[in-house]
Amino acid sequence: MDKKLLKIVKIGGSIINDDIALTSFLKDFSKMNEPKILVHGGGKRATEIASVMGLKPKMINGRRVTDEANLEVVTMVYAGLLNKKITSILQQNNCNAIGLSGADANCIIAHKRIVKDIDYGFAGDVDAVNSEFINVLLQNKVMPVFCAITHDKNGQLLNTNADTIASEVAIAMSNLYETELNYVFELKGVLESIEDKNSVISEINLNKYEQLVDNSIISEGMIPKLHNCFNALKKGVNKVKIGDASLIKITNNLFTTLSLK
Amino acid sequence: MDKKLLKIVKIGGSIINDDIALTSFLKDFSKMNEPKILVHGGGKRATEIASVMGLKPKMINGRRVTDEANLEVVTMVYAGLLNKKITSILQQNNCNAIGLSGADANCIIAHKRIVKDIDYGFAGDVDAVNSEFINVLLQNKVMPVFCAITHDKNGQLLNTNADTIASEVAIAMSNLYETELNYVFELKGVLESIEDKNSVISEINLNKYEQLVDNSIISEGMIPKLHNCFNALKKGVNKVKIGDASLIKITNNLFTTLSLK
Repeated sequence: MDKKLLKIVKIGGSIINDDIALTSFLKDFSKMNEPKILVHGGGKRATEIASVMGLKPKMINGRRVTDEANLEVVTMVYAGLLNKKITSILQQNNCNAIGLSGADANCIIAHKRIVKDIDYGFAGDVDAVNSEFINVLLQNKVMPVFCAITHDKNGQLLNTNADTIASEVAIAMSNLYETELNYVFELKGVLESIEDKNSVISEINLNKYEQLVDNSIISEGMIPKLHNCFNALKKGVNKVKIGDASLIKITNNLFTTLSLK
Repeated sequence: MDKKLLKIVKIGGSIINDDIALTSFLKDFSKMNEPKILVHGGGKRATEIASVMGLKPKMINGRRVTDEANLEVVTMVYAGLLNKKITSILQQNNCNAIGLSGADANCIIAHKRIVKDIDYGFAGDVDAVNSEFINVLLQNKVMPVFCAITHDKNGQLLNTNADTIASEVAIAMSNLYETELNYVFELKGVLESIEDKNSVISEINLNKYEQLVDNSIISEGMIPKLHNCFNALKKGVNKVKIGDASLIKITNNLFTTLSLK
């Protein structure tokens, strides 16, 4: 039997930080055919609130370290403030959303990142996704909205990269659905030239990706993002798209589609 | 067919403010027979965080007013920090909990309290509980954990009394289950004498309640709480119990049971 199409959409700071953009995006998300899953990052609100609370961001080699006080802040802001704000706006638009962290119904189990050279504190790397329960929600026409907080099933909450959550959820759901993973970010897609915001490369397969990297057309910053996308494709996700907020609009045709072949 | 027993347990500040008491209580909750629902209040953490953020509690006639800034704080603390902490500890104890606000899967719809003499701000009075979806969770052996945040289905989150959420959820579930509502608070039950903490009145029916009020045995503070309990009983809840944290232990026999007859 043919699998049903499931879209997993990840949004980050570029939308979350802007109330008008967020409301407009969530309207578009509500209009998308079901089933669908939303994953959201944190945006600048957590940093602002941490700062108001007198916490200084801890960075090692340019990477953020999540100590206990900062974990409290991201749990409050991601799982509380942002997740419930997004859920209530989707409800307003008649999308029956349910806001979730990885601890809820044991949806996403992770482990605290193992300390090698650097101790990233309470940063979580994903081990397992409860696709069975997520499917129960989808079959009841309830659309999951994941924030970037997971748990270790041992009472510890963990701060986890939202891009990774999106790809791990998409990979896990690929057993049950034909999956399409949509990464919404600040650009219209992968660009041929960073100076021309409309120079979107419409399709990139694994061969072309390697060529683009070899020819230094893909910028430093895009490499980990695309690496993550191809990893998802290799592990069973059927299609990955990258673009700006208009990515999920039916009328949009300027974005990048990634595929293996 | 006989209805299955469902217990709804509400906890407040006396447990939430004390990490050791909370962990111990959640262990006991995990051991309770399923199905079950937990409802939690806020405790002092929201006040502390509001204070750190430079917000002053707004009170009118001794009642708290929820302005926009304070709504942000309670959404963060109740739906984020506390709800996910409780959920992750329950998961650790092999209780498959799911943390929810009223916005999630449209579980609890409320309206902003109508302004008569006093504008309480973003305080919500409950209109409807989505018993059908809550039942889907219970049938999948997933136990709901509600914080005291609801929504109006129009994009507005609302701060709602946790005692009321517990009784409204219990009332709504009474169509599907035999319901027992457990209020855990700082005393062992309704006391014959406030000076003797062990003078628990073990059973109170509606007649006896009215007698106790007439004879001024029930203190001023207990009257709204008991009024709420009898309201739940009148609207279909089968049994209400009041006691301290040991209320949910099988071995406990010191608590107050309320019933209509």
